[in-house]
Amino acid sequence: MSDSSSVGIVVPQIAHFAEPLALRSGAILPAYDLVYETYGTLNAAGTNAVLVCHALSGTHHVAGKHHENDKHPGWWDNMIGPGKPIDTNRFFVIGVNNLGGCHGSTGPVSINPATGKPWGSSFPIVTVDDWVLAQSRLADRLGIECFAAVVGGSLGGMQALQWTLTFPDRVRHALVIAAAPNLTAQNIAFNEVARQAITTDPDFHGGDFYEHNMVPWRGLRIARMLGHITYLSDDAMGAKFGRKLRSGDIKYSFDVEFEMESYLRYQGDKFAESFDANTYLRMTRALDYFDPAADYEGNLSAALANAKADFLVVSFTSDWRFSPARSREIVKALLDNERDVTYAELTAAHGHDAFLMPDKHYHDVVRAYLENVE
Amino acid sequence: MSDSSSVGIVVPQIAHFAEPLALRSGAILPAYDLVYETYGTLNAAGTNAVLVCHALSGTHHVAGKHHENDKHPGWWDNMIGPGKPIDTNRFFVIGVNNLGGCHGSTGPVSINPATGKPWGSSFPIVTVDDWVLAQSRLADRLGIECFAAVVGGSLGGMQALQWTLTFPDRVRHALVIAAAPNLTAQNIAFNEVARQAITTDPDFHGGDFYEHNMVPWRGLRIARMLGHITYLSDDAMGAKFGRKLRSGDIKYSFDVEFEMESYLRYQGDKFAESFDANTYLRMTRALDYFDPAADYEGNLSAALANAKADFLVVSFTSDWRFSPARSREIVKALLDNERDVTYAELTAAHGHDAFLMPDKHYHDVVRAYLENVE
Repeated sequence: MSDSSSVGIVVPQIAHFAEPLALRSGAILPAYDLVYETYGTLNAAGTNAVLVCHALSGTHHVAGKHHENDKHPGWWDNMIGPGKPIDTNRFFVIGVNNLGGCHGSTGPVSINPATGKPWGSSFPIVTVDDWVLAQSRLADRLGIECFAAVVGGSLGGMQALQWTLTFPDRVRHALVIAAAPNLTAQNIAFNEVARQAITTDPDFHGGDFYEHNMVPWRGLRIARMLGHITYLSDDAMGAKFGRKLRSGDIKYSFDVEFEMESYLRYQGDKFAESFDANTYLRMTRALDYFDPAADYEGNLSAALANAKADFLVVSFTSDWRFSPARSREIVKALLDNERDVTYAELTAAHGHDAFLMPDKHYHDVVRAYLENVE
Repeated sequence: MSDSSSVGIVVPQIAHFAEPLALRSGAILPAYDLVYETYGTLNAAGTNAVLVCHALSGTHHVAGKHHENDKHPGWWDNMIGPGKPIDTNRFFVIGVNNLGGCHGSTGPVSINPATGKPWGSSFPIVTVDDWVLAQSRLADRLGIECFAAVVGGSLGGMQALQWTLTFPDRVRHALVIAAAPNLTAQNIAFNEVARQAITTDPDFHGGDFYEHNMVPWRGLRIARMLGHITYLSDDAMGAKFGRKLRSGDIKYSFDVEFEMESYLRYQGDKFAESFDANTYLRMTRALDYFDPAADYEGNLSAALANAKADFLVVSFTSDWRFSPARSREIVKALLDNERDVTYAELTAAHGHDAFLMPDKHYHDVVRAYLENVE
């Protein structure tokens, strides 16, 4: 039975870029692949393209399924499809795995042609600017001069914002969801604990664990467990798990006692099996470094002066990772520059993860905004 | 030069208890030592004793110095001494290291007489109730029938509260500071990540690392780094560290870039050198299990019905580990039972750590409360 609101079966594609890419760090990537998916049809004028940027652990697989019995549709399948808020009947939607990722785009797990071995520790550090630059070459390749919209949540929202600064003439609308203009000290602190868990795992081998046929699963697991705490609100955890015991009674042990523990261990285990530790390190560093105001003595209004796009900025009340106050900083800086900004601060229980949830009010906001995009 | 507001040089003492202690878990500790310190003089009637209970990583060394050049006075030296809020000119103050600790009281690092080896993994899980019971025997030994006050912050505050339930006739006043009636799911989650970091450290050896002449420093370090994030407020971290770089420029590396990272690594390193991993596990479990309302179908008012003490409850506005709302739950339950309660919700920037800080307003509140204690 086909689902008329799904983009259906999708096939990832790979674009190879042979020209070197000069990275923000000063390193040069001699060549790279980007894996991507597209949904919908690019119009003849090439004006209906929407780029979806992913967050820390996201991928290019944003909507649809890879095969008929695929249990895991794309990570934003509730948002993207025929008749959905990002409507593939109108828009040509692109999902792309970022450089440094571990899902098909060139990253630490890829073979470095110069050595014939995985890049591992030698894969350069990549930044939000670098991703935008790499994505722009994919846009060139696909014949997209200017995006109707660039969209993202969390780290993806930072990319959407960066697009309006690096390529002000190539994006008409930016949807910056559950994002922040930079990380706070506390945000950096959480990232650092996660990184230290990974890099001090004896199986990390300085990042070259592939050669040892090992995976620093302990560190990755801790990093992901910690991440999950910051993605959910205290209230959401309370409502979902509270102090519920796994079995009826307390066992007085260090095995799982509380449902909360069981959930975290499960999430950690699952992630550690599938994600690359070097990618995790680089994604968190990209978050740390993102700070458009840094080159403007901390003045975000000055930093955003080049933006020409219209904006939808969305935040969620229970998001304590990137609180509404952080989104309001972006809104204020845009208004200082007389940009056209729609801001929605949505009541939501799910914390930072709310940006992934099929909340009707949230979807209505995105839908309504995009209905006014020509 | 002597400091007239210091209790001066103090000498820890050890009390040995030969009678077995039946623990909440069902385990029986055949005998145990408690290391403690006292400041001030017990009056003839034995009515001026104040017990200070410590938090997760605290010790019996609450005030004064161990020798003239001691750089580290007791952890609450700013609160306790001649003329200080807990005035040793009036009160006989006792600090005691809890069972399961690693500073002299019987714990996992102690030799189990039955085996001649450290207890390690076989040391039982101890609870807040167990600590109160063990402390009561020390009170017996010292000739204290009823404490003028039992005082504690954080996990120490939970002990103060438990004293009023286990021994309602042995405590006249309880000072419950920066505490909560139980942990939230989020609190448990943070503890669980810390524990998993420790127990999956390959050097943990199931808790019997002593026999391998190893210490699971990686896990302890991660646990402590994580702990520090929860002890400080986002704002306090922002004010102290913000996004300050260690050197002037970004290095694009995984070495320390931000001051925040440097601070966390330093705190983690220092702690991992000195604290026992098995103690850490047990202290966090004691926190998880504390829940006086559990035996009353979650009804905290019913749980506190036996308390006879008067209470000072203190919370700090920026404490997100045990927020003011959690302290207010305790206050409400006490008022439901028509207890005499003073509640102070103090504006403070330091987060949970505020209970250790020499804030004048905070000290004035404690001082004023105790001035009315006869």
